[in-house]
Amino acid sequence: VNAENKKVAIIGLGLMGASLAMALKKNSDYEVFGWTRKKEVRDSLREKGILDKTADDLENIIRQAEITVLCLPVPMIIEYCRKYAECWKPGSIVTDVGSVKKTIIDSVHDILAERGVEFVGAHPMAGTEKSGPDAAFDSLYNNATVFITPTDDTSTEAEKQVEQLWKSVNANVFEINIDEHDKVMAETSHLSHIVSYCLVLSVLSGDEKTAKKNRQACSSGFRDVTRITSSSPRMWREIIEANRPAVSKAMKNFRTVWTLLEKAVESGDVAQLQKIFVQAKNLRDEWLNLRFFPEKTVFRSMKNNTYENL
Amino acid sequence: VNAENKKVAIIGLGLMGASLAMALKKNSDYEVFGWTRKKEVRDSLREKGILDKTADDLENIIRQAEITVLCLPVPMIIEYCRKYAECWKPGSIVTDVGSVKKTIIDSVHDILAERGVEFVGAHPMAGTEKSGPDAAFDSLYNNATVFITPTDDTSTEAEKQVEQLWKSVNANVFEINIDEHDKVMAETSHLSHIVSYCLVLSVLSGDEKTAKKNRQACSSGFRDVTRITSSSPRMWREIIEANRPAVSKAMKNFRTVWTLLEKAVESGDVAQLQKIFVQAKNLRDEWLNLRFFPEKTVFRSMKNNTYENL
Repeated sequence: VNAENKKVAIIGLGLMGASLAMALKKNSDYEVFGWTRKKEVRDSLREKGILDKTADDLENIIRQAEITVLCLPVPMIIEYCRKYAECWKPGSIVTDVGSVKKTIIDSVHDILAERGVEFVGAHPMAGTEKSGPDAAFDSLYNNATVFITPTDDTSTEAEKQVEQLWKSVNANVFEINIDEHDKVMAETSHLSHIVSYCLVLSVLSGDEKTAKKNRQACSSGFRDVTRITSSSPRMWREIIEANRPAVSKAMKNFRTVWTLLEKAVESGDVAQLQKIFVQAKNLRDEWLNLRFFPEKTVFRSMKNNTYENL
Repeated sequence: VNAENKKVAIIGLGLMGASLAMALKKNSDYEVFGWTRKKEVRDSLREKGILDKTADDLENIIRQAEITVLCLPVPMIIEYCRKYAECWKPGSIVTDVGSVKKTIIDSVHDILAERGVEFVGAHPMAGTEKSGPDAAFDSLYNNATVFITPTDDTSTEAEKQVEQLWKSVNANVFEINIDEHDKVMAETSHLSHIVSYCLVLSVLSGDEKTAKKNRQACSSGFRDVTRITSSSPRMWREIIEANRPAVSKAMKNFRTVWTLLEKAVESGDVAQLQKIFVQAKNLRDEWLNLRFFPEKTVFRSMKNNTYENL
């Protein structure tokens, strides 16, 4: 597949969209079109050379695109597909970066398919707690996992095009079933956010005297556990809203483990606590090595019950 | 108070102890003595000039100290105070960095007081998930909160000495009541660790097929929420073991908030979710500014229900 001359339209130029534009300009030969609601943002990105082309008129942009990437919040992905369905040219591909896939695909697949436009769901596991084009950077997708969720109708060619797009910005692409995607996201990303929200409320929302002391005491541990709560509340509410049954299930699972921990703390079952903490550390360290240092094939051997270093 | 000629002995040269030695050498005129069980570590820190003096014999070191800082795990702080009580000279001060205070002070205060040695509990809110002298760095305590927990017996002079020690490495020192310290730590630090352990188990300990998909999907959000689970499991088990009633209570409080969130997700109470997420973001952002950017006195005004940046 040759990316030369391929016209990619990025709709929505926040953290995800602007970073994708930067990454494509840096690493690929795609012609990068872009549009966002704020004129000053799209013009500024054009002036900086991060976009090859923009226009005041969204329809103008998507009419020319061979691949359109909707880098928008979940409800807007659906809204834009419905509203501009007529504008895409037959044979073109529409894809997205939405954190849930079933709601989106159920809502937009048929509308676009009727017009000969293929919707291929995609979801890059990348982002920060910040938003907006000022937070964008060209390495956001380096080594990131990108899930692609084809349906039975998805053509091999369309899937390949979307795969190639993400590979060109150094992402690792995996195909996954739509329902499985939403389940996996509920268990990993969405649950992490809920846990983090819950911790913040639990620690900082008490009476003012307690809250004041707790603010003094909270340090780098709390800072990192709660980093993701500084993300856009509306965006996350919409994501979780669109994936409620799977998130509910993941939360029940968390509660089961929580109960186990509560019992161990309450009864002073020190052996159980030790076992749980060791297991968690091992699971996390192994994951970290695998995910961020894949070149290290041998997992660290842990000596968890000794003080090696004091 | 003049730090010149004051002899500080740091016992335990892991992350906390070695960082304290580095920070004192960089920022103060204290004479820094140090000891740790591993001969090669103490000799190497001496050779690098991070310690002014070490010795193979722990007793030799503490006999000379005017202030001793026990940078050891909680049970070892107690053990060392008991074992070496005879060695400290009358009028000298023993302090520590233990994450709980009541157990320690109840166990060691009287033993040392009988010998004319004052134990002044202290606890710097600093650290990383790493341990050992190789993880140490001289800015660990910059701008960190350090709690000092005097008892009714603590002399003004002894408290001032410990305060001065921590101020000399750029920490912010606060006095706090012993029980309040342990409660605040349970609600902030200890709870954060339990939450993080619980999330790791909940996400990565399922059947191998699920765990494999989840490992693929977990990204920077999960990485940061769970960073602290890579800390020493034994150290954290001992800390929580020594603070069980307060940790239990904090966990019950977390569960109450969790139940609220679970109900909102299950029933689709979108307004409630939005409210909770906004509140959490505001609390966390305000804390972050206050804690890490205290020079910014005006809190950011959040626009949480709009997409400003897309």
